[in-house]
Amino acid sequence: MNHFLDWRGHAGAAAEKFFKTTLWQGEHVMVGLNCLEPNQTQSLHAHEGADKFYFVLEGEGKFTVGDQERHAAAGALVVAPAGVAHGVTNTRDERLSLLVAIAPGPK
Amino acid sequence: MNHFLDWRGHAGAAAEKFFKTTLWQGEHVMVGLNCLEPNQTQSLHAHEGADKFYFVLEGEGKFTVGDQERHAAAGALVVAPAGVAHGVTNTRDERLSLLVAIAPGPK
Repeated sequence: MNHFLDWRGHAGAAAEKFFKTTLWQGEHVMVGLNCLEPNQTQSLHAHEGADKFYFVLEGEGKFTVGDQERHAAAGALVVAPAGVAHGVTNTRDERLSLLVAIAPGPK
Repeated sequence: MNHFLDWRGHAGAAAEKFFKTTLWQGEHVMVGLNCLEPNQTQSLHAHEGADKFYFVLEGEGKFTVGDQERHAAAGALVVAPAGVAHGVTNTRDERLSLLVAIAPGPK
């Protein structure tokens, strides 16, 4: 396998929902890329038994994690412990790109 | 807990070795920040039973993962599956900052 990737080579847009792709699926973690166009939303959801975090690569979004709601931009780390509901909306006029990791990843 | 962090508020330097700090320790993953000053090295090592990845935040380093050696700069994702040796050296004249995730994290 190739151990080196660049997220910019994997970004994209999806008209109906938001764009998502897997960058790496390890035995204990999945690393992916989510791209939300303006006004797109990842609805509130939770991963039972899996921790998740987002790292904001570009753009800005309005995140909800548990009972906290916050705008977060490039450089922000947003963490959602196992079982805690989380979601995000792109409230700006440019793409919101997120590195996401889920541990353990979906089987 | 606070679900929102910014890595730039946690960066630092350590004279003897490289700087490392934990940003979040979940049940299934640890997210940390490593900062290497010019010429500092994280020696080759492996995590048995845990996947790891680096995401390059700023600067550039020479990474080794298994039998692959590559220079990688901001925006690069470097993945080290469980048991595969990995390390990095800052070969440039500016700080190398890395988001790191280890799943499962050290107990």
